[in-house]
Formats: sequence, C-alpha cells, structure tokens
Amino acid sequence: MTKSLRLGIAGLGTVGVGVVKIIQRQAQLLSARTGCAITISAVSARSRDKDRGVNLTRYAWEDDPVALAKRHDVDIFVELMGGSDGPAKNATEAALAAGKDVVTANKALLALHGQALAELAEKNGACLRYEAAVAGGIPVIKALTEGLAGNVITRVMGVMNGSCNYILTRMENAGLTYQQAFDEADGLGYLEADPELDVGGIDAAHKLAILAALAFGTRVNFDAVALEGIGAITIEDINRAGDMGYKIKLLGVAQMTGRGLEQRMSPCLVPATSPLGQLEGGTNMVVLEGDAVGQIVLRGAGAGEGPTASAVMADVCDLARGLRLPTFGQSADTLMAAPPASAAGPARYYLRLMLLDKPGALAKVATVLGNNGISIDRMRQYDHPGDDAPVLIVTHKTARPSLDAALADLPATGVLHGDPVALRIEDV
Amino acid sequence: MTKSLRLGIAGLGTVGVGVVKIIQRQAQLLSARTGCAITISAVSARSRDKDRGVNLTRYAWEDDPVALAKRHDVDIFVELMGGSDGPAKNATEAALAAGKDVVTANKALLALHGQALAELAEKNGACLRYEAAVAGGIPVIKALTEGLAGNVITRVMGVMNGSCNYILTRMENAGLTYQQAFDEADGLGYLEADPELDVGGIDAAHKLAILAALAFGTRVNFDAVALEGIGAITIEDINRAGDMGYKIKLLGVAQMTGRGLEQRMSPCLVPATSPLGQLEGGTNMVVLEGDAVGQIVLRGAGAGEGPTASAVMADVCDLARGLRLPTFGQSADTLMAAPPASAAGPARYYLRLMLLDKPGALAKVATVLGNNGISIDRMRQYDHPGDDAPVLIVTHKTARPSLDAALADLPATGVLHGDPVALRIEDV
Repeated sequence: MTKSLRLGIAGLGTVGVGVVKIIQRQAQLLSARTGCAITISAVSARSRDKDRGVNLTRYAWEDDPVALAKRHDVDIFVELMGGSDGPAKNATEAALAAGKDVVTANKALLALHGQALAELAEKNGACLRYEAAVAGGIPVIKALTEGLAGNVITRVMGVMNGSCNYILTRMENAGLTYQQAFDEADGLGYLEADPELDVGGIDAAHKLAILAALAFGTRVNFDAVALEGIGAITIEDINRAGDMGYKIKLLGVAQMTGRGLEQRMSPCLVPATSPLGQLEGGTNMVVLEGDAVGQIVLRGAGAGEGPTASAVMADVCDLARGLRLPTFGQSADTLMAAPPASAAGPARYYLRLMLLDKPGALAKVATVLGNNGISIDRMRQYDHPGDDAPVLIVTHKTARPSLDAALADLPATGVLHGDPVALRIEDV
Repeated sequence: MTKSLRLGIAGLGTVGVGVVKIIQRQAQLLSARTGCAITISAVSARSRDKDRGVNLTRYAWEDDPVALAKRHDVDIFVELMGGSDGPAKNATEAALAAGKDVVTANKALLALHGQALAELAEKNGACLRYEAAVAGGIPVIKALTEGLAGNVITRVMGVMNGSCNYILTRMENAGLTYQQAFDEADGLGYLEADPELDVGGIDAAHKLAILAALAFGTRVNFDAVALEGIGAITIEDINRAGDMGYKIKLLGVAQMTGRGLEQRMSPCLVPATSPLGQLEGGTNMVVLEGDAVGQIVLRGAGAGEGPTASAVMADVCDLARGLRLPTFGQSADTLMAAPPASAAGPARYYLRLMLLDKPGALAKVATVLGNNGISIDRMRQYDHPGDDAPVLIVTHKTARPSLDAALADLPATGVLHGDPVALRIEDV
C-alpha cells in the first residue's frame, strides 16, 4: 500500500506555482521514487482570484496561512511566502508547534530565526527543511550536511546572488557603468522590491549565515556577517582587476579561525581562471572545502521557478522517504555560539586611489603604506585625461587592521581625490 | 544515550586507511553530527604485517573478508577491496544476506552486479551504499538521487576518470604525444595495474552505468555502454580542436531517448569555455540536467585517500543518522530494463583525415560525405611537410548511421592514409 503525504502550500508566486506544477505533472515519478503519493490538500496566497496558469480548484483555499499550517489534512507545510517575520514566521511556528514538518525557501527566516525554529522543531518532533533557501536548485544544504559529513569543513565560499553577478558581468562584458547595469537588471525584474537586499549583499549574506551554521556546527548568526555591497565597484575596477588576471565577484566566505567564526560578504578579487572567476551572469556557485575531500565546487541556477521548485521538492521527497535530520544537521542544543571574528587574517588587497596630479603624490601614498607595514606587490598608474591619476596597488599579504590604519592615514596626505577602494583578493 | 555503530573494514589500501584515519581523528565530530559513536570492530586485508601508518591493534583481524562481513560485532560492512567478483562480491553478498548494511567504493561491483545486489539488500532489509564509487569525493550519488528527486533527469554527463583527463591535459599543455603523457601518468602511479581500465574508458563507464540507473530508474547495464578509449587521440587532434574553440575530453553521456537508454563513454569535443572544457588535470566533473533544475555542475577530486574516504564516510554517516534508501533510489523491482539505444541522434562531428597529396583528393572526400547526406560546417587543410595533408572537418548535425556509412565508404576513394578519426561534438 502506498503511503500518502499531503502538502499545504502557502505562497503561490513563481516558486509556489513551480511546486504545484511538479506535483501535478510528476505524480507517478514521485511515487516511484518515494513510495508515497504526494498530494496537495490546501493552498494559501494573498489573492485568490489571480490566474496563475495552474488549476488550483482541487485544493482547499485558506486566506490565513496559519490556519493552513494547522489543518488536519496537511502533513507538510510548505512556506513560500518569504519575509523574515509576519505571516511566514507565524505560520511556520504554528506548523512546527503542531508537530508538522515544514519545507521553506525562506533564507531570511532561517538566517534570523534559525536557532529558535530549530529548537521548536525538535521539541515537537518535526523537521524544518530549506534546501531552496540557498543557491536555488543547487543541492548545497544536502551536499554540506550529508555529503561532506565526514569532513572538518575548513572554508565555505559562494557567489549566491545571481543579480549581483549579472550586474558585475554586464559591466565587464558590455562596458556598462554600475548604474546602467543596475537599471538593466531592474528592468529585467532581477532585483528585489528593495534592491539593497541584492546589491547590498543582504540576501547573499542570509545564505552565507545558513551555510556557516551547517559547516561549523554553530548557531546561525546573520548579524555577525561583515557586509559590503557592490555599489562602490566601478567599471575601472573591473577592467583593472582584469588586467591583472582577476575578476570581481560578490563573494561570501565563512571560515572558523582561532579567534572565532569569520563570515563576510563583500566584493573580492578572484583569479579569472578559477571556477569562481569563470562564473558569468546569474548563475550561482558554492565552494565547499573540507579536510578530507579538498575542494568541491557546485554550480547551477540560483533562482527561478524550476530550480527553486526543484529544491523544495528535494526536501519534500526526503520527508516522503523518511529521511529526517535536525534542522542544522545536529541537535539544536549542540550548536555552538561561536564568537564572531573579523576578517583580520592576512590577505592581499587591491587598492584603487585617485591621486591628485601633484609632485610627490605617489611617494606620500607609498610612505603611508610603508609606515603601516604594508608592502606593495604591484602598482600601476594609468593615463589620465583630467587632473586625477588612477593608481592601482596590489599589496602583499597584509593584516586587515594594518590596512584599515593605512586607509585612515591616507586622507591626511592631501593628495587623494575621493575615497580609496580596497578589495580583498581571495585565494580560491 | 549515544547509539553505537560498529564497522568492519575489508581492504586497507589508500582508501581503507583514509577511512580509519577519519574515524580515529574525528570521533567527537562524527558523534555530534550523527548521534552515534562510530567505531571499528574488525579489519581485513591481504597482508596483516604491512605498516600502513595507522594503529590497527585495537581492531580484530580477519584474514577472510567473508568472515569479517558476518561478524556479530559488525553493523556495517565497509568493502574497499575492489574487483567486480571474488572476495569483494562474496563478502558483500554475505553481509547483505546477514542483513548488514554495506558501504563500498567498488564501481565495478555495482556496475556489473548492481541489480542482483540491490534485490539481495532489499530482501534482507539492508542498505547498500556506494557514494565513493562515482567521482570520488563529489557527493554525486546523493545529489542525483535525493537532491534532484523532483526532476525528470534529461541527461547526465561526466568526466570521471582523472587519469585520462590528466593525459589529455598534459598532451595539450606540454605538447606531449599520447604515449609520452601515458608514460608520465603511469610513472606517477595514476594508472590502474591494467591501464586499459583507465584509458579504455572502462572505469569511467562503470561510473556512468551507475549514474544512468539512478537518473532514469533503470536496471544498471554496463554492457550497453558504447565504449571508446582515448588511445587514438593525437596531439594534432587536441591542437586542431583547440583552434576551433574546443577541448577533447573522455566524456560519459547518458540520456533517455524514444528508442531507449543511450549510454556512451568516448572522447568528445566540448566548448573550451564550458565548465567541462575548462576542467584540467585529474579533477572530475559531473553535469546533471533535469527538467526543473536545468543544469547542475559538480566538480572535485575524483580519487585519492581523502576524497574517497570522505565519500565512504558520507554513506556511513547517513546510515548512522538513519537515512536509508533503496540501492538505486527506488525499490529494485520497479527499475526498468530499458532497451539500449545507440547514439543515433543527430550531432555534429569532428573528422580528421590524412589525405594523400593527389589532385582531386579533397573533392573525393567531399563527394562521399555529400552522398551520405553529411553537410560540412567547417573544413581546414593544414600545411604538411610530408606527403600527407591533414584535413579537419566539422560537420553539421548528422545522424550517426550516416556518418558510419560515410566512414565505410571513404577507404574506397583511395586518397586516405590511415583511418579517419571521428569525434562527436557534444553540446554542453
């Protein structure tokens, strides 16, 4: 006899509709794979009457997602509304409190309330799954939590916001300014209603915080992510980085150090020939490094109806197959509260300065760097039509506090125009 | 109270020692992640006295792996001996018959006896796991079976023999002949005792057959893989393919067609800028394509102590966590016996011919191709110091039977020196 598993889906946007389509289209395949008849009992969304291109008449309708989450004919509550608080959180909590499993694509919810939700899930014997919350269709939660379970994870990296990578790629390939590429991405509907979630790195940092918790057995701590968006990157930076064999990516990096857990999401230079450097357009990439496995690279679509629905269904199928794990791979009470560590470890940096065209200007800059213990690997001064001379500097390995001290000292030289840009060069 | 899980490890080569090291070193981490104390009860290998650099004195020793598999203090039998028959098969069968779970890295065993072993496992309520059998440390079995469970898989591709990719990369980057690169790989210990397993594509085809069964819900059928090794590839081919923007890779491709299941392992041309084209050296890459997820690319070390042991431990941890699935993702009796299909679908081909320096030679070749309905996209004739003129042809999309007919007709023209080389251009 085939078991049955009944879903309640809250949120019928792109991803919700994608999930409905898969369940309607692939009933036989899903049943063969899981041994379960996976069905939908009820749905909920803001507007009941909107034509979504799928037939929803077979399913009960709930205006209130909390009511949906509690229904007796719902075994798994599928939360696809989004938002870190409000209905998404309330309904998720209601489902877990009722002992129902939850599958969600909500990165903000997990990044901000992951620990409390994990504890609530465990207390009630429920599973909370969120493969779709990180890097869309790439099964990275599973790869990290299960596939690399025998490893001490040493570093997690990722380009996990397709919109930012699209903007940076377009700046490079089409010679657009940041604003032009931003407007183009916005016109194509690639950006969130609040674009700062994308270009400010917040969305990607949510994902990084989740991966870090899984990788290092720590309590998810989004507030500790050192966050820097891509708004200050110019086409000049991209071209000059290119001259030196690098690409600029909004890169998330998490690693456990002797000082605590380092989490940062910021524009970095990576070698143009590395898998991260070769990543173009809206595609996502996650790099997982472990003491036994070395480096694993995962690449795929980070958003969109099909890829995100695929990840939601991976979680649903796992639950249908009886594959159950604690929210962050181990019981919530064993997750450590790691102290946040700044990215103080030595790294090479790329500096862009606009130098006033005065005699001795370059010497003054070099002196400030030298006084702060920063040695220069490469320096290029470019032709300049106006009064300012763009100067690019690549440092040798430098501790971040030394760099920060130098950046603080530079304005007093009186030879700079505008603020210097400093980007970390990540060894990947 | 922590549960305990006791392993019996048969085979103490590189991978076996790697597994022992992880279990000895990471006891606390593994226990936190799985809720189980994972220990080793007994081991077995050919030579008891060999110094393997790990302390084995705590473990019982069995000369006979079958006896090891049946021990009452062994919960999971870890088979790392290799070989499709003999002790590996006997001991695996003994363990499964005794209702014990088995974890193996043995691709040949699964490729040749997968269906029977899956049935035996199910009959006895045991799990048979083999993440380490395909693409080393890359968790591709898991990604495909679980991570993409909501997808109709449309195509699986992979570069899954690091030694072949090393040889091809060295030919290209160092200008070595095939034989020189082969000898270098052999000297570095990269090749199996029977190198035909590597360069003949057999090892990679074992892996492809396993992935195909998982992807398409079919009975594993290694004998149906169309197999072609890399021995006929010359530095000329690599350079000329490079001129046209391609790399040559030993590429496995499996896809379900209207005619049946197509499985082939052969040298193919792939775009130099694609992830597969950019793969250098001994690294492996698997590309999974699904109707919802689009294309997922997984990259990592395909062999070696750490990566392979990492994959073995992923399976062990899954079992420790109670994550249990049928051998091929669904119950063995639901796996279809798909008819094997030849790679008859239209594709572009690269042809290399050595033309005798006679008037009208090229016209004769072109006529044969035209008579068989093959149209030419690009053709280049190269300078030639001797009497033979190398001619490179890229065809438009052509059905393989037409190509085969043309290849059969070409010798009768009397203008060829040696056999033509025909390589498929795979759209990746």
